[in-house]
Amino acid sequence: MSSPSIALPTTPESILPLVIQAMSRTPDVRLRELMASLTSHLHAFILETQVTEEEFERAVKFLIDIGQATGEKTNEVILAADLLGVSSLVAVLNNPANHPDAQDEAASHAALLGPFWRANAPVCQSGDSIARGNTQGVPLEVRGVVYDKHGKPLANATVDVWHASPVGLYENQDDAQENMNLRGRFKTDAQGAYFFKTVRPAGYPVPTNGPCGDLLRAQLRHPNRPAHLHFMVSTPGHKVLITQVFADGDENLTSDPVFGVTAPLVGNFEERTVNGQRQASLTHDFHLVEGEMTFPHPPIP
Amino acid sequence: MSSPSIALPTTPESILPLVIQAMSRTPDVRLRELMASLTSHLHAFILETQVTEEEFERAVKFLIDIGQATGEKTNEVILAADLLGVSSLVAVLNNPANHPDAQDEAASHAALLGPFWRANAPVCQSGDSIARGNTQGVPLEVRGVVYDKHGKPLANATVDVWHASPVGLYENQDDAQENMNLRGRFKTDAQGAYFFKTVRPAGYPVPTNGPCGDLLRAQLRHPNRPAHLHFMVSTPGHKVLITQVFADGDENLTSDPVFGVTAPLVGNFEERTVNGQRQASLTHDFHLVEGEMTFPHPPIP
Repeated sequence: MSSPSIALPTTPESILPLVIQAMSRTPDVRLRELMASLTSHLHAFILETQVTEEEFERAVKFLIDIGQATGEKTNEVILAADLLGVSSLVAVLNNPANHPDAQDEAASHAALLGPFWRANAPVCQSGDSIARGNTQGVPLEVRGVVYDKHGKPLANATVDVWHASPVGLYENQDDAQENMNLRGRFKTDAQGAYFFKTVRPAGYPVPTNGPCGDLLRAQLRHPNRPAHLHFMVSTPGHKVLITQVFADGDENLTSDPVFGVTAPLVGNFEERTVNGQRQASLTHDFHLVEGEMTFPHPPIP
Repeated sequence: MSSPSIALPTTPESILPLVIQAMSRTPDVRLRELMASLTSHLHAFILETQVTEEEFERAVKFLIDIGQATGEKTNEVILAADLLGVSSLVAVLNNPANHPDAQDEAASHAALLGPFWRANAPVCQSGDSIARGNTQGVPLEVRGVVYDKHGKPLANATVDVWHASPVGLYENQDDAQENMNLRGRFKTDAQGAYFFKTVRPAGYPVPTNGPCGDLLRAQLRHPNRPAHLHFMVSTPGHKVLITQVFADGDENLTSDPVFGVTAPLVGNFEERTVNGQRQASLTHDFHLVEGEMTFPHPPIP
């Protein structure tokens, strides 16, 4: 039996250096750095927990399943990242306003994009309602001002909003809703103000009929997000603000399954009853920082 | 703006403890341990490398792509694990014979399963050839003995073999090959011996037409595995031995893209020329350890 003179792995710990070496010629320095760190942490995780062959098989199956379950109505890969706090971590990390020592104290907190943003929501006029068809619910008026880092109002900025219905479903999950229901893009006026009408969204469970639902059940975690509106606010010369505004008083504010709630993102929803009808309003301003206006890829078409 | 009294994440580092806490009620202690370690390492990786939003999107896309590319002919999730050394790590970790301080010094080294094992290969008689149809190549005879940990031959053990053709393709990748070509299951005789005929396999590139191929190219890594035979040796009361035997002298022995080669797995292939025809032979024994006879799930049907 011949043994080559060059080292071949003989211990679990001897494999990682070979992998790092094999990847060391990567011309893209950043890719090299990312893969080296990722691979090191993967090997450390496996060594630390002494992953068995059966557990490895289950992990492979989970990864195949979340990839194959992803499609027009759901993105289980993003959902998995959401449930492990990874999406929120990336959002917070890349939005210095979320940091307690932020220099731009006025800048708005960001939150994860989530799996339900669609590009090309209908372009609306200020004051339009995004509750299309016969969507029933508590009428909600939303208004606010978009500012730059100096507190100057930003005219003609785009406020892209999307949210779940009063029964807790996005239109793409619900055949009873019109296409693009509860989605719309508004422009701020000369004073930086935006204004739209809709109905109060309900909290909702993240999708639980896929592999991520199995994981939540195995962890005895509830799937219910606190009620919220999604916003993507943009204007040239500024970093695109992707954020969410949560309903104050929601019972799941402090147990969001995707860890998206930070204190400044809890909105101040006001409700009153007029002629026996509940009516709600929310005033929420946004503060952008300078930067490149880069949009994410839509998780669903 | 209301701020709930319970802590909500405000820094990147404040998210992980919330995730660990959310998963802390997992009844399956092992699942809890695995997910806590995995999540901690994922967060550490992201913080260490300061992953950007765009990089996160690319990672999500890669995971979707490898899941969706997996099917009857290929398993890109396993391939990705192979290329990061993860599959070999799990194989070495779970087969103490691979450790230098192994108590069962005689036990055979294991190697990764790879993405091409199929269950239910044809049951063959000792001496049968697994080169079906008109597979051309250098004739190869393979023989050896299967032993238990005490050096006692194991009669009636199953030796399941599969390998690539002399052009470097598995039958399921190659319409020119018969179904189940170069695959077969043999039983050891009363003296623990197995014997079969085939043709010398060539080295081959791992599949490069999918997302993993893009990764290899971005890392300037060659995809070529050294030529090898796959074996899965089993008998009740013993751990299933999944391993590979590599052709000595192959130029890629020390740069296997999936890190599967350990020194004891380099086989001693002998070649001679008879009447102008090359003929090869390999003698390779297997040493099983006691344990549960558990088979993996086939990566492809």
